[in-house]
Amino acid sequence: MGREMRWWGWGEDARAGAMSARALRWLEGELGAFEAPRRGVALDDVRLDPPQLPEAIRSGFADILRDDRAARVLHTRGKSYPDLIRQRAGDCVDAPDAILAPRNHDEVRAVLEACAAAGVVVVPFGGGTSVVGGLEPVRDGFTSLISLDLGALDALETLDERSQLAIVGGGLRAIELEALLGKRGFTLGHYPQSYEYVSIGGCVATRSAGQASTGHGRIDELVVGARMVAPAGDLDLRPQPASAAGPELRRLVVGSEGVLGAITSVALRVRPVPELTRYEGWMFPSFGAGAEVLRRFEQGGLSPDVARLSDETETRMGLGLAGFGGMRAAALGAYLRARGVAQGALAIVGWAGGEDEVRARRDAAGEVLREGGGVALGQPAGKAWLRSRFSGPYLRDELMDRSVLVETLETATTWAQLFTLYRAVGDALRQHAPLVACHISHLYPTGASLYFTFMARTRRGEEIAQWAAAKAAASEAIVAAGGTITHHHAVGRDHAAYLEAEIGSTGVAALRAVKRELDPAGVMNPGKLLP
Amino acid sequence: MGREMRWWGWGEDARAGAMSARALRWLEGELGAFEAPRRGVALDDVRLDPPQLPEAIRSGFADILRDDRAARVLHTRGKSYPDLIRQRAGDCVDAPDAILAPRNHDEVRAVLEACAAAGVVVVPFGGGTSVVGGLEPVRDGFTSLISLDLGALDALETLDERSQLAIVGGGLRAIELEALLGKRGFTLGHYPQSYEYVSIGGCVATRSAGQASTGHGRIDELVVGARMVAPAGDLDLRPQPASAAGPELRRLVVGSEGVLGAITSVALRVRPVPELTRYEGWMFPSFGAGAEVLRRFEQGGLSPDVARLSDETETRMGLGLAGFGGMRAAALGAYLRARGVAQGALAIVGWAGGEDEVRARRDAAGEVLREGGGVALGQPAGKAWLRSRFSGPYLRDELMDRSVLVETLETATTWAQLFTLYRAVGDALRQHAPLVACHISHLYPTGASLYFTFMARTRRGEEIAQWAAAKAAASEAIVAAGGTITHHHAVGRDHAAYLEAEIGSTGVAALRAVKRELDPAGVMNPGKLLP
Repeated sequence: MGREMRWWGWGEDARAGAMSARALRWLEGELGAFEAPRRGVALDDVRLDPPQLPEAIRSGFADILRDDRAARVLHTRGKSYPDLIRQRAGDCVDAPDAILAPRNHDEVRAVLEACAAAGVVVVPFGGGTSVVGGLEPVRDGFTSLISLDLGALDALETLDERSQLAIVGGGLRAIELEALLGKRGFTLGHYPQSYEYVSIGGCVATRSAGQASTGHGRIDELVVGARMVAPAGDLDLRPQPASAAGPELRRLVVGSEGVLGAITSVALRVRPVPELTRYEGWMFPSFGAGAEVLRRFEQGGLSPDVARLSDETETRMGLGLAGFGGMRAAALGAYLRARGVAQGALAIVGWAGGEDEVRARRDAAGEVLREGGGVALGQPAGKAWLRSRFSGPYLRDELMDRSVLVETLETATTWAQLFTLYRAVGDALRQHAPLVACHISHLYPTGASLYFTFMARTRRGEEIAQWAAAKAAASEAIVAAGGTITHHHAVGRDHAAYLEAEIGSTGVAALRAVKRELDPAGVMNPGKLLP
Repeated sequence: MGREMRWWGWGEDARAGAMSARALRWLEGELGAFEAPRRGVALDDVRLDPPQLPEAIRSGFADILRDDRAARVLHTRGKSYPDLIRQRAGDCVDAPDAILAPRNHDEVRAVLEACAAAGVVVVPFGGGTSVVGGLEPVRDGFTSLISLDLGALDALETLDERSQLAIVGGGLRAIELEALLGKRGFTLGHYPQSYEYVSIGGCVATRSAGQASTGHGRIDELVVGARMVAPAGDLDLRPQPASAAGPELRRLVVGSEGVLGAITSVALRVRPVPELTRYEGWMFPSFGAGAEVLRRFEQGGLSPDVARLSDETETRMGLGLAGFGGMRAAALGAYLRARGVAQGALAIVGWAGGEDEVRARRDAAGEVLREGGGVALGQPAGKAWLRSRFSGPYLRDELMDRSVLVETLETATTWAQLFTLYRAVGDALRQHAPLVACHISHLYPTGASLYFTFMARTRRGEEIAQWAAAKAAASEAIVAAGGTITHHHAVGRDHAAYLEAEIGSTGVAALRAVKRELDPAGVMNPGKLLP
């Protein structure tokens, strides 16, 4: 089943870093002094019930079945803050009764048909990286539940270089796809923060965006074909560059969150590995000034491939957690003060392409950046971001050791509404957390995304309630301000109650109708997506 | 109900041109000598049955109802070749029993609810430009049928300049939208060949592409919100730049072809009117050589906003029908021969934007065009295309007067399969028509569209059978070669039998499930889209 993450946290021990003493001190300054770090229970102390699986499933799929403690605990949930709180507490009594890991499309079909017939819930599991409760083992009245681990569907099936189109197994991890494509001179260019573990099928099921999606497009735009096994039949959408043959059913697969079926293969637009990438930091006098530049970029066709802008708090937090201090901090502070952008807003902009192309685009963008009040910090700031861009979740683990609530959430809206939404969500979160930071990371001609990070000391034993209160406040503020309940994390369980506010009761009814048709027994990932 | 088209053909008398004698002679050289032109029956001779409408509908909507001869005949069908054959023959016995023209969203809802309750079929009618039988009055077992004319929903409701986002009534015509936007300095930039008559709701319902869609995006990509009235409820999808909240339901509205409901308003991405547009002609030694350049454009991020390439036959046809001859033809011929591109393939490329931007993009593209064997014909060729780009359907009327079958159809596939598809469809059509021309008009990173025009002398009285045989041969060739059954004309009635080959039985079942949910009585545009 490939490389597995730590059952109680993100990633692997070997990849986890450790916060510097200076960073810890900075954060204690914000949140108050920390307790001594303590992790959760040991694997052997995790509470599990004995597996209950119909014999037909157990014997029918013995060769692809695991139900050992380690596998069941790991597959119990994803990696949301409340998921990890529960894992650390050793609360896995609702663990899957088994993990089934089919090796090909036909085996996936066999498993789904058998589970539908036997009334066994199926929770598709790709990289296991959901941060919205998308993997929570909701039985919804059924007795048994399996985790359908798609990790064995990990082939680069076809690479059509002429059409720049790759067909890949749904279980292939994004990082492994890049390695396979890279050998042939191609790249997908899709880098969600979960990049090192997420599966391509998971990206598709959750409508993910990547850090370069401003330039390369969301997964929605990269998918040109898909194959999904539903209990009632295969939805087989061959690669097509474009069509007008009725509603685009690829967009029914994208965002389906395992509720309609399991994605066994995906046809993706790929592109040649760029000659060159260049990332830079720019400091703006304010978040508002920086946002104005991003809007000009996007509406003027000048957007870099990566364009992210931290608000003043996130900028301060980034410098604090990076452990800047002493001489370096003083020098940087003096430089920024001299240019009028101390306490400003940091932007990271990046380009990929041929050398001439990158230079031309960078020059054009540089003019807009300077006109908008930006002060160039050069490539070191860009490289620092690049180095740490997948490490946020490891930091969360360390903070959770120290009883810090740390959570992120994201939304999007039009440019005209962006700052109304920003203030509304920030105000709501600050009722629950002293540290609330935000950045814009995805640009569109009509609007942009907002990504919030918030932190608070936890009250031991009340972590989930504390999280739920903050999450509800933010979600209600988003809905009231007309933002989307999720820009790229998906709906899962955490946002399901807010879906109707976004797509209306008729929208929900339409999705339910598709669900009834494709999964008449209702065994596919219940409790997710649909309210 | 705004400007109406001729009930037996395209457009309006005042806008129709006349073929030159030279063009007629050229075409007779290809197809054989023509008969004397004759048009169809007079309006008074069209066969109509008396309208049969439940009294509840007639009296309930008296103020928005028409059932005079002219309105019923005009609303009987769209503008496909078989539609016009039937109209010219005066065969309107299946005409709508009335035309209802609601003035706002709530009136649309009232009409749909009343029709669903009374068992009256509703055929939404925007610009009336369908070329795939999308407006055919299929009663599907019901007694009565109304044409729902949405022309009164023609407001530019909101223009959010900051977000470059316009909300417009579903019945607003594309040409009128451009006029309204233009006054404020904005443009949608969506130019299907039906541009002068098509409604925005019609573009959305049929997943249209425009002549500048390579640069500006298909309607799919321009729609950021939509409101659709279904008998069971309103699907109200507020404008969002992006979201991960489940499958993108906007894409269920786009391409829904009136089968799920009527589109009352659409939120669209707009952009500032470009400073400058520039169109040029380039001649390639062959269609294959030109296609290679288009692929390099698209995969290298160098595509012009308009990029179309005629094959050798279409190039010859274009020159023949443009009425080139004598000195001008001889001079052009000598020029092209001297450069090795006589009997070549004509490309039209066009850019829109700021002066510097257009120059830079044009220079970069020019290099690729020359490297690919292109010979510059300059701006006159581009301007000639621009002048005539909406006039094709008028030419069809003239040819139909002369008993010529003239039809177009379109498909798309990956770059790797493009020429296999091109040959397969061409071979199939040549069994039925002596003149088969093709162009590429929409580029995507993974593939391109193919648009075929074919012409043949008709056997009087057998026009429909003759058309059906050619259409079936082409459709079967498309399906066998893995192309999409339609790139931008939609499914309508003519392609419904081929939808399952494209999206599979599970895909059809999913759409039917949505249809049952949103239109439980089954009154919305039966016989279209779904097989």
